[in-house]
Amino acid sequence: MIGTEIHKFACSLWHLNRSITGDGVRQTLSIIKEVLPDLSIVEVPTGTSVFDWTIPKEWKVNDAYIVTPSGTKICSFKENNLHLVGYSIPIHKKLSLNELQDNLYSLSDQPTAIPYITSYYKARWGFCISQQQRDSLLEGEYEVFIDSELFDGSLTYGELFIKGKSQSEIFISTYVCHPSMANNELSGPAVTTFIAKWLLSKANNRFSYRFVFIPETIGSIAYLSRNKDYLKSKVIAGFNVTCIGDNRDYSYLPSRNSETISDAVSKHVLKHIYPTYKSYKWADRGSDERQYCSPGIDLPIASIMRTKYGKYDEYHTSLDNLISVVTPEGLDGGYNVLKRAIEVLEKNTYPKVNVFCEPQLGKRGLYPTLSTKSCKSEVRLMMDLITWSDGTKSMLDIAEICDVPVWELYPIAMKLAEHNLLTLYDYPVSS
Amino acid sequence: MIGTEIHKFACSLWHLNRSITGDGVRQTLSIIKEVLPDLSIVEVPTGTSVFDWTIPKEWKVNDAYIVTPSGTKICSFKENNLHLVGYSIPIHKKLSLNELQDNLYSLSDQPTAIPYITSYYKARWGFCISQQQRDSLLEGEYEVFIDSELFDGSLTYGELFIKGKSQSEIFISTYVCHPSMANNELSGPAVTTFIAKWLLSKANNRFSYRFVFIPETIGSIAYLSRNKDYLKSKVIAGFNVTCIGDNRDYSYLPSRNSETISDAVSKHVLKHIYPTYKSYKWADRGSDERQYCSPGIDLPIASIMRTKYGKYDEYHTSLDNLISVVTPEGLDGGYNVLKRAIEVLEKNTYPKVNVFCEPQLGKRGLYPTLSTKSCKSEVRLMMDLITWSDGTKSMLDIAEICDVPVWELYPIAMKLAEHNLLTLYDYPVSS
Amino acid sequence: MIGTEIHKFACSLWHLNRSITGDGVRQTLSIIKEVLPDLSIVEVPTGTSVFDWTIPKEWKVNDAYIVTPSGTKICSFKENNLHLVGYSIPIHKKLSLNELQDNLYSLSDQPTAIPYITSYYKARWGFCISQQQRDSLLEGEYEVFIDSELFDGSLTYGELFIKGKSQSEIFISTYVCHPSMANNELSGPAVTTFIAKWLLSKANNRFSYRFVFIPETIGSIAYLSRNKDYLKSKVIAGFNVTCIGDNRDYSYLPSRNSETISDAVSKHVLKHIYPTYKSYKWADRGSDERQYCSPGIDLPIASIMRTKYGKYDEYHTSLDNLISVVTPEGLDGGYNVLKRAIEVLEKNTYPKVNVFCEPQLGKRGLYPTLSTKSCKSEVRLMMDLITWSDGTKSMLDIAEICDVPVWELYPIAMKLAEHNLLTLYDYPVSS
Repeated sequence: MIGTEIHKFACSLWHLNRSITGDGVRQTLSIIKEVLPDLSIVEVPTGTSVFDWTIPKEWKVNDAYIVTPSGTKICSFKENNLHLVGYSIPIHKKLSLNELQDNLYSLSDQPTAIPYITSYYKARWGFCISQQQRDSLLEGEYEVFIDSELFDGSLTYGELFIKGKSQSEIFISTYVCHPSMANNELSGPAVTTFIAKWLLSKANNRFSYRFVFIPETIGSIAYLSRNKDYLKSKVIAGFNVTCIGDNRDYSYLPSRNSETISDAVSKHVLKHIYPTYKSYKWADRGSDERQYCSPGIDLPIASIMRTKYGKYDEYHTSLDNLISVVTPEGLDGGYNVLKRAIEVLEKNTYPKVNVFCEPQLGKRGLYPTLSTKSCKSEVRLMMDLITWSDGTKSMLDIAEICDVPVWELYPIAMKLAEHNLLTLYDYPVSS
Repeated sequence: MIGTEIHKFACSLWHLNRSITGDGVRQTLSIIKEVLPDLSIVEVPTGTSVFDWTIPKEWKVNDAYIVTPSGTKICSFKENNLHLVGYSIPIHKKLSLNELQDNLYSLSDQPTAIPYITSYYKARWGFCISQQQRDSLLEGEYEVFIDSELFDGSLTYGELFIKGKSQSEIFISTYVCHPSMANNELSGPAVTTFIAKWLLSKANNRFSYRFVFIPETIGSIAYLSRNKDYLKSKVIAGFNVTCIGDNRDYSYLPSRNSETISDAVSKHVLKHIYPTYKSYKWADRGSDERQYCSPGIDLPIASIMRTKYGKYDEYHTSLDNLISVVTPEGLDGGYNVLKRAIEVLEKNTYPKVNVFCEPQLGKRGLYPTLSTKSCKSEVRLMMDLITWSDGTKSMLDIAEICDVPVWELYPIAMKLAEHNLLTLYDYPVSS
Repeated sequence: MIGTEIHKFACSLWHLNRSITGDGVRQTLSIIKEVLPDLSIVEVPTGTSVFDWTIPKEWKVNDAYIVTPSGTKICSFKENNLHLVGYSIPIHKKLSLNELQDNLYSLSDQPTAIPYITSYYKARWGFCISQQQRDSLLEGEYEVFIDSELFDGSLTYGELFIKGKSQSEIFISTYVCHPSMANNELSGPAVTTFIAKWLLSKANNRFSYRFVFIPETIGSIAYLSRNKDYLKSKVIAGFNVTCIGDNRDYSYLPSRNSETISDAVSKHVLKHIYPTYKSYKWADRGSDERQYCSPGIDLPIASIMRTKYGKYDEYHTSLDNLISVVTPEGLDGGYNVLKRAIEVLEKNTYPKVNVFCEPQLGKRGLYPTLSTKSCKSEVRLMMDLITWSDGTKSMLDIAEICDVPVWELYPIAMKLAEHNLLTLYDYPVSS
């Protein structure tokens, strides 16, 4: 089960202090590059204008903790990087419990969870702490220590291009800005890494593939600001990969357009693999599809997920871990659904029969020679594929009409093509 | 409450003998002109061909009544003009009760109601009487007296044009041919007068407005026969205003096309103001939309009503009055829904975002600076407006997608426009 | 009842040994020609390539039977031609019951039925026998005797053209390859013969009509291989006529396109004549529509049936007879539905009103002259026809909108046309 391997890979990335900039991102990309040696690492300098945004200062944390009145070190960044509010400014001072409370974040309804909090664009400092621990704090003088730096550096992302027979590209994006959380988000880069590895292992991919491992929002905006026109001219389908590692559900979130080929493929694959999958709407968006599908960008990017961000209790807390939430089975399922979706795109040709009227299948051994009353269900699907192969419908269109998984049609189409009864075209042809 | 004022205005019109021609129409228009001084009064001479029809003779009634065998005057026109069948020819003769019965009209299932009957295009005379009174008539000699005149005169209608920034017009029609009845029809001209007054009071209307106060059927046909080509080139939306004064229901009747902007606006406004409103079909038509939407005319005219003609017991009887049927509250509701529909048309621009990708709302104070797990419902609608503002969708389209009243989007759109994040176009622009 | 006549005609064809070739077909066509003297008989020689197929050898049977160990002759072809597997090769030999069993065909779940079996394209011999009789066979030596011939001859079909005012054709196909079975298939050629007779009896058909009486599959493929381009340029509608003689149900099977005028007419007629009719899908196809609607052929051919092939127990057995399955009533119903469908096509013009706004029906005596409160349901349909007669909608479209059988609109349209209020166009005209 490849899920085991992906899970192990995710574990190796767990401890790094990922944020929208900084060495945590670089280290993460460096480990991914061990699997994908051709991964390019791109740096976008602080201060660069990217559409309506500006690349922020780079953030670096050397250490951060609180010392209690009794001298105990708590909320240690080195113990769990979630303890520190993302992009916290440096501070070192003593203050009362009351004063400290203003800079503590906890979740009263999840007393054991450390929440995940960031303040990228406003100078703040703060610690995230479990409600349980917060409630146990005694009056007295506390020492807060944050040895962080905010400096002109850069935002870092990784990009991998896999050349296929066609210049048309399938675009796959995932993000590398979340610290120690599993479903959202180590599952995305981990699964994506292995999808890229699988595509590299295949000879003769029909399409070219472009993978980006980026920080969410500012990263995708930065990437789009540099590549918008190119992407709009090349990308024919794609996926935003996030929350793809738990074993509880499957989910789909559409592109803004909602009727792109990526949407059709996502729904088809999920329907046949996990009929009770959750189908969200564009109104439920919340990941980088917000940028990829924004007005004027409009890339055909859909999301296939396991349990969606915001839809599971552990979301954006320390409880979203690689033990009870993200599992080898969960990653395996996510990987296989995404792989299946890509296969469907690769094989989504437009079949057209080469003869008028029904072909004489019998003389080719493809049809029973004795006509009886009994139902010929074994050749029915072949006849259905033939009858819809008018050159205007894709394999996926035909599978939807016949209400079968499209992969059941592949061997039949191959057999008919071998007998020269069918030609598979890359594009629709007139009937 | 403006409904009180409209109700008072309707009361001042109550007693006039409105018909498809005659001084009752002229007096009605004269009172409306007191509120709308720019109202033009147009006369179309008897005998004028108007499409398949001919303007009939003008009808004038000096007096009409029946004298019973005991000498009592009943069915007096001066007491209630509904007593006389519309367009009755003059007569003065004595006849038996039996002979009289042939020319009496009553409603057996509504014994206290005087029905409303007309015979515009066939020479007839008759009296309308309550079933109760009819049943009490004794044998004997009756004297019937109708001092009416039918002569070459004209059909009269009123027209008001309010110039806006655009030459495109919104067309609003109502009718002035019904004698003493309230919902059908004093509510229409009364509400329409106050809608026109409100539009006159506004500076800088986006669209121009054209109001007609006409006799039903023959009036709208006469108007169209003179103005068809002009209207087809200018009118972009409009409403036929009838039955808009009782307080029992709200109703919508489509244009023949049923998918014009007038239809979309009517349904949107009613859905959000009165979700249980009645939605009729073109098959249920029965007012001047029959002419405005006829083949080859095809103006985008929908009807917003309170309780529809033919759908309430008092319809076309003396029971349809300004006391128990049409009320200040009913007129107020009708006025406000129509006003709201016009506002939606005025503000139905095509928003388009001025930046690629999501704008950075945080730097403008439009977005929380701290990312937490909690639902950001307060900015959600702003994000939704932004994501759909691709220049191809109107404000109404976007409100329908987001399932909110479009007026909830106005302040958000204004705020975004002030920050130069959004431009509101009069017409769709490519995304 | 014409069903009685059709039933009698079917009886006269019963005994003939119809197959995909041979004298049984010729004799059948010859009897049809007695009713339709202009029927052309066409021969396509053995070995002719017809698209992906080749015309097979002609099959002739002189005699065939089995002699039991006790000397009884059973499975006699002369007694029932279903006893012989279609296209059986000649044989004359003695063999044990065990050896014989390999070449016997019966139906264990229908013990009294002789099944209908063919082996057109693989050399075989065999006998069809009821399960009951088969179970009674005793051990011993059996003599099988098949005096059949397979030789270079031809495939035979019949074709009839009826010229109408337009060169556009309605194409009707049925088949003549089934031996002694009734619903599938003597009902098809029998009903079709009488439909053709009816059309010949009418003067001034709007459309031209083309009838073919052909062997199923190989016959329609042969016909299409010779006439494809002509048919594609002329045929505007058509029906495949099969299973149209039992009295149990009505059924519709669409064209592959499923939205042709033939489909619309079929559904409209069936809905109003037999609302609970069965509506099948293209996936349920199984007759010559498979060829007529195949990719690149795409003729607008739908099927109106009584009980569909494969959907009744007696299908493809000796139980499908002219006594208990196909009845005069069943044939009568089938004939009348098909005739109705053709009438709908003939009268499917595009009405357009000749006046703007509603015409004044009253002055033509088409509308009550007294306006009362009562519902004017008697003129409502006339008003509805007028309002939808904008030149872009066919009579059928309008009937669907009004939810009435289109034939209820014919007399109204005629009356309006007589008053010059309506013109009926052959093609849509702009409104």
